[in-house]
Parts: sequence; C-alpha cells; structure tokens
Amino acid sequence: MQEPIDQFLDRLASSAPTPGGGSAAAVMGAMGAALTSMVCNVTIGKKGLEGVEAPMLAVRAESARLQVRLTEMMAEDKARRSAAIESSLRRATEVPLACARACAAVIALTQRAADLGYRGVVSDAGVAVLAAFAALRSAALNVYINAPMLRDRIFADQSMAEIDCLVAYAAADSETVYTTVRGRL
Amino acid sequence: MQEPIDQFLDRLASSAPTPGGGSAAAVMGAMGAALTSMVCNVTIGKKGLEGVEAPMLAVRAESARLQVRLTEMMAEDKARRSAAIESSLRRATEVPLACARACAAVIALTQRAADLGYRGVVSDAGVAVLAAFAALRSAALNVYINAPMLRDRIFADQSMAEIDCLVAYAAADSETVYTTVRGRL
Repeated sequence: MQEPIDQFLDRLASSAPTPGGGSAAAVMGAMGAALTSMVCNVTIGKKGLEGVEAPMLAVRAESARLQVRLTEMMAEDKARRSAAIESSLRRATEVPLACARACAAVIALTQRAADLGYRGVVSDAGVAVLAAFAALRSAALNVYINAPMLRDRIFADQSMAEIDCLVAYAAADSETVYTTVRGRL
Repeated sequence: MQEPIDQFLDRLASSAPTPGGGSAAAVMGAMGAALTSMVCNVTIGKKGLEGVEAPMLAVRAESARLQVRLTEMMAEDKARRSAAIESSLRRATEVPLACARACAAVIALTQRAADLGYRGVVSDAGVAVLAAFAALRSAALNVYINAPMLRDRIFADQSMAEIDCLVAYAAADSETVYTTVRGRL
C-alpha cells in the first residue's frame, strides 16, 4: 500500500465501492500488529528487561508477519468487492473471515506485549488491542452480510459459527488485555 | 499526511517515539469520519431516498470537517510526544482529549448514517462506529497516562472526569449504533 494516508481517507469517504469497510478493518488490524511490534522493539535491549527478551522476539516475529498479512488484505478487499458483483460471495465471506482470524492472532500477541512490554509504552499495547478488536468486529460485519446470501449452506453456517466464536472470544480477551494495560499505567 | 500507508505502519512498528498510539487513534477516528461520509455520498441522490437527502448533506458536512480535524491530530501527536519530553504534560493531555471529543462527534454522526443511510452500505456505518469508538478509547488511554502527572490538579481532575464521561457515553452510544446496523443488515 504505497498510497498516501490522506488519499486513502478521501477514497474511503467517496461513493466509490472500494476502498470500504473491509479495507478500513484491514488497516486497523495492521495498526494493531504494528503497535505490538513497537512495544517489542522498545522492550528488546532495555536494561533490566533482559528476562523478557526471548518471548518479545517471538511476539515481534509473529506481529511483523501479521502486519504484512493484514496489509495485503487491504488490496484483497478490492478483489472481494469485485468478486461480490460477480456473485462470488464465497470469496466475499472468506476474505473477512481470514481478516478476523488474523486480528484474533494480533489480540493474543497484545496480551504478551501488555504483560511483558516496557511500562513506558504499555498504553500502545492498549491501543493495539483496541484497534485489533475493532478490526475483528468490522470484518465480522462483512461476514454477517455475505454469508446469509451463500447457496452453500454448510460453508455459510460454518462461517457464521466461526465468526460468532471469534467475536465472543476476542471480546473477552481484549477486555482482559485492556484491564492489564490500565493496571500497568 | 502525504505519507504512504505502508511507511506509516513501519514507523508505527519501529521503536521511534512517534508515530505511536496517539497517531493510530487519530487515524482510526479519521477512518470513522471518512466511512460516515461514504455512507452519505452513496445515499445522496439515490432514487427513493430523496427524503433523507437534507440530513445526509448535514452529516457529510460535519464528517468531512471531522476527518480533516482528526488527520491534523496525527501531526499533533508528534508535537505531543516532544512536548511530553519537555514536561509540557498539559498539551499531552489536551491533544488526546480533543481527539476523544472529535471521536464522540463522529459516533453521533454514525447513528444518523446507520439510521438513514442506503441499506447496501449500512455495514460501513458499522465499521465507522467501531473505528471511532476504538479511537476514543485509545485517546483516553493517553489522557489516563498523562493527566495524573500534571501539577495543575484542577485541570487534571477536570480532564479525567471529562474523559471518563466521554468513554461512558461513547460505549453506550456506539453499541446502540452497532445494534441499529445489525438490525438493518
């Protein structure tokens, strides 16, 4: 995504079908992953925090991967919208579902960042979890619109069940991370 | 913000003090405002929706203004962090407080967009409110860190009381908007 932020926001605001809510969800998820990496980067090498360096390196490897994955999904949202026009609703359900799974993975990493990260940047772990959870719920909205229209009812029902499960777990997990962050401020 | 999204995310992930959670909050708020404008833009001029054109024009005027305001705050976050180093904690409280107020205004607009907007883009009103609420809670985290360190206790207490109030109202309001969206999907 080489597009300037200003231009992305203006295209988001326009009546053009893309970018839309799916792209915004991917950006929020990517910001959650990026802020998790930031907490790791500030923590790694800090005097007195040598004990958490190994887990923080593992978290950073995963959050960096998820940042790339979610950034790629901004482009996929465009494909999704075109696909929807071509009645390929299956892909229009699969892409936000994949986005939601990636955001659930980011939320799990924010718990590590909130627990182990340098105290001076713990609020950034809080912003990371809020962004990732908003992204997950946003992706879920796209599943809720598209899945009911699918002819393949088995895939549709599985997708709806999975997304409901992801939202429920993420709601509980993200509040736990937020509470950890508030407790360390 | 002429910076490409990829580059912004990489700087967010780096250990550099800016951009951080404050900038991410401003971007999320700006995305909420932009998606609200999108719902208005798709609705305005639509056959059969002539009756909601006047309120949608009013919402768009306000959401466009807030998008610009929140985009400006991305730059202000940088000033805020430098200011914090110079012990000017007052500004480090005022900027996220202003961000939270702007996000509360975006949430109010998303209710209009969710109620009156074209049904085909109502999920984007849902993403808008999720983004704006995550942005408001993120901004609140920055107030929670900085306000307790202020020497001016009257201003600090007022700021804490205001942000608690903004978060509480926004939590209730954004769930109402989300319920409206789910009901119209």
